Amino acid sequence: MDAVRTRVAIVGAGPAGLLLSHLLARAGLDSIILDSRSREEIESTIRAGILEQGTVELLDEVSGSRARTVGSRHDGIELRFDGTGHRIDFAGLVGRGVWLYPQHEALKDLIAARLADGQDIRFGVTAHEAVDAESVSPAVLATTAEGGELVVRADFVVGADGSRSVVRQAVCGSHGGYFREYPFAWFGILCEAPPSADELIYSNSPDGFALISQRTPEVQRMYFQCEPDADAQAPSDAQIWDTLQRRVPGATLHEGAIFQRDVLRFRSFVARALTRGRMAIVGDAAHTVPPTGAKGMNLAVADVVLLAEALEALLVGGDASLLESFDERASARIWKAQHFSWWMTSMLHTAPDASDFDRRRQLGELRSVVESQAGSAYLAEAYTGWPL
Amino acid sequence: MDAVRTRVAIVGAGPAGLLLSHLLARAGLDSIILDSRSREEIESTIRAGILEQGTVELLDEVSGSRARTVGSRHDGIELRFDGTGHRIDFAGLVGRGVWLYPQHEALKDLIAARLADGQDIRFGVTAHEAVDAESVSPAVLATTAEGGELVVRADFVVGADGSRSVVRQAVCGSHGGYFREYPFAWFGILCEAPPSADELIYSNSPDGFALISQRTPEVQRMYFQCEPDADAQAPSDAQIWDTLQRRVPGATLHEGAIFQRDVLRFRSFVARALTRGRMAIVGDAAHTVPPTGAKGMNLAVADVVLLAEALEALLVGGDASLLESFDERASARIWKAQHFSWWMTSMLHTAPDASDFDRRRQLGELRSVVESQAGSAYLAEAYTGWPL
Repeated sequence: MDAVRTRVAIVGAGPAGLLLSHLLARAGLDSIILDSRSREEIESTIRAGILEQGTVELLDEVSGSRARTVGSRHDGIELRFDGTGHRIDFAGLVGRGVWLYPQHEALKDLIAARLADGQDIRFGVTAHEAVDAESVSPAVLATTAEGGELVVRADFVVGADGSRSVVRQAVCGSHGGYFREYPFAWFGILCEAPPSADELIYSNSPDGFALISQRTPEVQRMYFQCEPDADAQAPSDAQIWDTLQRRVPGATLHEGAIFQRDVLRFRSFVARALTRGRMAIVGDAAHTVPPTGAKGMNLAVADVVLLAEALEALLVGGDASLLESFDERASARIWKAQHFSWWMTSMLHTAPDASDFDRRRQLGELRSVVESQAGSAYLAEAYTGWPL
Repeated sequence: MDAVRTRVAIVGAGPAGLLLSHLLARAGLDSIILDSRSREEIESTIRAGILEQGTVELLDEVSGSRARTVGSRHDGIELRFDGTGHRIDFAGLVGRGVWLYPQHEALKDLIAARLADGQDIRFGVTAHEAVDAESVSPAVLATTAEGGELVVRADFVVGADGSRSVVRQAVCGSHGGYFREYPFAWFGILCEAPPSADELIYSNSPDGFALISQRTPEVQRMYFQCEPDADAQAPSDAQIWDTLQRRVPGATLHEGAIFQRDVLRFRSFVARALTRGRMAIVGDAAHTVPPTGAKGMNLAVADVVLLAEALEALLVGGDASLLESFDERASARIWKAQHFSWWMTSMLHTAPDASDFDRRRQLGELRSVVESQAGSAYLAEAYTGWPL
């Protein structure tokens, strides 16, 4: 059994863990990151990414992000209903925008920058338990790619290890959380086609929701609301295009070869506690949001900014007060983001049990938002991100 | 059987019917108003009244309303949650306000002004059927207080006859409507006590919703969320005060003798059609909103403004186009108001099946609204009223 010691043990080399290691290094705190996946696996798992302006500014600062060259800035979205598109002009309403920059590209930037800095990232190492939270010397027990046992002991352990977090077990047990399921999912495709629109289209149609998104000039990402147990392989390409075209009435989508299909389940989750003693959880380990509000990665970044400050105060300055208030401060943003994600979801999707009244009220709500500068700005400021 | 003829037969001497008769008279169109109730009954049925600024301006113009002398202007409301009050500053956010002016006081103004103008208002006359909608000469069949039959034939028939509308039957049948019920009601009291606050307090508490409202310097109106089948006579005064005090945590209510109690059912309803041939329905005959958004009477006034223009165009100018588009134009505001009423209701009340997640999301929503100038302005512009 190998044992190593570091100031902060971080489980998970996703955006949260990598960004945290950078902010800690800047404060003079060494860390070790463990991830069960290989670097190649992490860098090739295609996940969407709508980055808030504050997220991009922070990533730029820490890792020289390629968001501005490989990604693209969006100054608005379209809300489409009743056969008409209505642009929410982020730039005009709140003077901010978002960046369409896939998460795996952001991860390539972060990994390269961290490794260039000498960060200890251990790929292929699977954490299976976090222990001694209430001591001053908690640890992560892990198994290496070769099957050996590894103990990483530290002054603090952070779980940035996603929705199946091992560290969360140590922080708040296996059933500690606020939870909501939704009676639908998203059927997502990647296709070879030119963009059908310059900005994202969020479409509420009589048949259900669709989201028209972009990836590159040659590759597009589109989604439509489906049953939670839909089989991604069941529909033909023609059926998928028929569904998508019907879900965006009044617009015509450019079709092309579909080379990836997946079904994204919808759930909302927040852990009952974000810290215990000298352990904390951030990002997907701490919360899950449905994808409609595009808040997932941005919320992880916001958690990490607060936690890095708290750890610097504790481990450099000997001041525990920021850590003690971390849960409350992080939760304030988490619950606003949970609300925003629920709001966008419920305003745009058709619930299976929706009555005619519910459907008309939903259209009344969409009209209220787009006809009101205040309503549009309220949506825009949440979408582009509250200040970090 | 008596028969009379007029240009417009109006069923219902509530705010909608009385205001319509005034606007029609101004356009040179005679009308007869029928109401099954006596003048005394109409003027003494105490109903709440939050009047949008536009409603007060219109009432002032047509009947010399006493809203500005007997009522009181409110430039904001308080949203209370998590033990803290947050003022939504209507005046500062949208430069508008509302008037607290009980509906029966507005009715006294309107009835006095209409009678002084020579309006034919027939109290104690019960309409039981509206006929011949598709002809150029529709009629209302009614029974007088003495038991005689009366036929009021007209160029147009308007149902302003409330939620049990007889005219609605002729416009869209007995089961034509969009409907939603809520799993709670309001327990309302009138009490002899000084005001507990200068403005309305909408309180979301762990125990459920409460609304602290005012009537006069000596009489207050308060409500708390209760079961839909609650018995208004069941709780003692002490139990009522205990419930109210607990529902407004962080504030202390002035208690006093309770001299009226009632239970208000919650429902949302919109008729499937607002016109048929030469008949139309307005106000509560056309729609019901839950009271949380204070939209009931204001929406009736907005319907009437549109209908009066349409009837003037039709009956004076011979132009049917405004009547043809009346349903669509009135519905646009109705569904925004339905949404607003649903929003205020769902944001502030505790549903019986609410999970811990739902409860926290609701607090996240309230915090999102009060922390955002745009969110607060979005609420304020709906509460104070979209332009008529």
